Amino acid sequence: MSNGFRVRHLAIVGLGLMGGSLALAMRAHSDHISGVDQDERARAFALERGMVDCATGDLYDGVNRADVVILAAPVRVIVEMLQMRIGSYLRSNTLVIDIGSTKQDIVDAMASLPIGVNAVGGHPMTGKENGGIEESDESLYRGRPFVLCPSRRTTPAALLHALAFVETLGALPIEMDAQRHDQIVAGISHLPYLLSATLVATVANQARDDAAYWELAAGGFRDTSRLAASDVTMMGDILSTNTQAVATLLAQFRMQLAMLETLLIAGDDHRLGESLQPIRQARKKWAQNYDNRL
Amino acid sequence: MSNGFRVRHLAIVGLGLMGGSLALAMRAHSDHISGVDQDERARAFALERGMVDCATGDLYDGVNRADVVILAAPVRVIVEMLQMRIGSYLRSNTLVIDIGSTKQDIVDAMASLPIGVNAVGGHPMTGKENGGIEESDESLYRGRPFVLCPSRRTTPAALLHALAFVETLGALPIEMDAQRHDQIVAGISHLPYLLSATLVATVANQARDDAAYWELAAGGFRDTSRLAASDVTMMGDILSTNTQAVATLLAQFRMQLAMLETLLIAGDDHRLGESLQPIRQARKKWAQNYDNRL
Repeated sequence: MSNGFRVRHLAIVGLGLMGGSLALAMRAHSDHISGVDQDERARAFALERGMVDCATGDLYDGVNRADVVILAAPVRVIVEMLQMRIGSYLRSNTLVIDIGSTKQDIVDAMASLPIGVNAVGGHPMTGKENGGIEESDESLYRGRPFVLCPSRRTTPAALLHALAFVETLGALPIEMDAQRHDQIVAGISHLPYLLSATLVATVANQARDDAAYWELAAGGFRDTSRLAASDVTMMGDILSTNTQAVATLLAQFRMQLAMLETLLIAGDDHRLGESLQPIRQARKKWAQNYDNRL
Repeated sequence: MSNGFRVRHLAIVGLGLMGGSLALAMRAHSDHISGVDQDERARAFALERGMVDCATGDLYDGVNRADVVILAAPVRVIVEMLQMRIGSYLRSNTLVIDIGSTKQDIVDAMASLPIGVNAVGGHPMTGKENGGIEESDESLYRGRPFVLCPSRRTTPAALLHALAFVETLGALPIEMDAQRHDQIVAGISHLPYLLSATLVATVANQARDDAAYWELAAGGFRDTSRLAASDVTMMGDILSTNTQAVATLLAQFRMQLAMLETLLIAGDDHRLGESLQPIRQARKKWAQNYDNRL
């Protein structure tokens, strides 16, 4: 937090939960923050709360004088901005970091930026159940992993710059290539979402004939089904930009499920227990480490 | 709570979280509570805290003078007790209620009790992440659904008796047949457990080559994987006594998952969104009702 890093002019494109929280966290480390959003209410909220110094619906106005530009939008919106417009708006040596949830498409699109513009893919592993700038939280990034994925527009100096930015946010930078990132999030985030949604679909289907399914569902169902309540547009955007990795993980999931089901149907309690015990240990060990980090 | 219901002699077989919490909740409504458990430490704990008036490792000693006997043990232990021993230990007109997690096998086994012993299957939809009598909580049953499943040893008077008992606990009695109960819990509890365990197995498999899976996993993974940390012996007991219903639900789950995957791989964002939106609504509606009831 106090590494002395300062941004002269920070531009944040997308004033939602992530962009708003980033503005709050960078407030004390920036001379000037401009916010860009099509939504007038989001702009008004950010201005009223002093999260930004100016807010505009015009991308050029928002970013043309910036030293650091944060793209905090859905993945496909970021890709479109990178491919279509933003490159010509930026000054030479500007650093662009996006915070989209999948990285390969974005890092590929960064390659089309003009030479001289620096760009690094980013993905902070944080969030909240409910989005929107009203939910912004200065500590949202604090202590959380923040993946950085180099692109063809990432010079060594740009990467150091991005690392310093992430550290100033209070997050923990982790560098990896985009493909590896997308595989990992397919397992820890996109697969869980699909399982959660499919569980709810299955129960809802049963509950059409018997409302007692909903009546008796309790804490275990609540936890397992929570991700099914995620924003559908956001999740569709994420899944559509990571189809291959998600399909691979789904195939592995099906194989694991079939193995457990076979033991169950065979009545092989001993081997079923032998399979479930290391799973339990792995989850307990992870949860312990995770809770300690929080 | 204040329906004036009293038990002269309540016997609780199994002094864990569920049995201990039941003892605490019934303390003020019972003249005498005896506890039965093989574990000397559980008996000592229950006695020291005044949860029971006497505690024994001998089933006969514990239940032979009881008016109401609660069987709070794993499903297959309950089935064995019902088939092998307990019938001959009980006085005529004793009411037996079990609180095992699946009901068909237990209700079937109740049919072998001597005529004159009254028995009702039960399943309170409550619990805690960690078991053990030390976790006992007087309010564990309060406001929670408590399923009652009639057996061939359930007279109309016995059912009324069981209803009064459940209401005295502060729980909400819901009567249904054992088969329907087992189908419902397969969907809202056993399927979620299997999905959670299989998710962890899938991620653990990937993480063998790349520890960053564990490093980046966050809140969404935590919720979806929580049930994978359940006690394996307990879950094995539950799954093994509900194999048919679980297999049926798994088949439906696979079908729903294949539908979503097909839309995803086809890149049909519009129809994918149209499928996910009602799922999200169903989950939100359920969660709202559930939170209001808590």
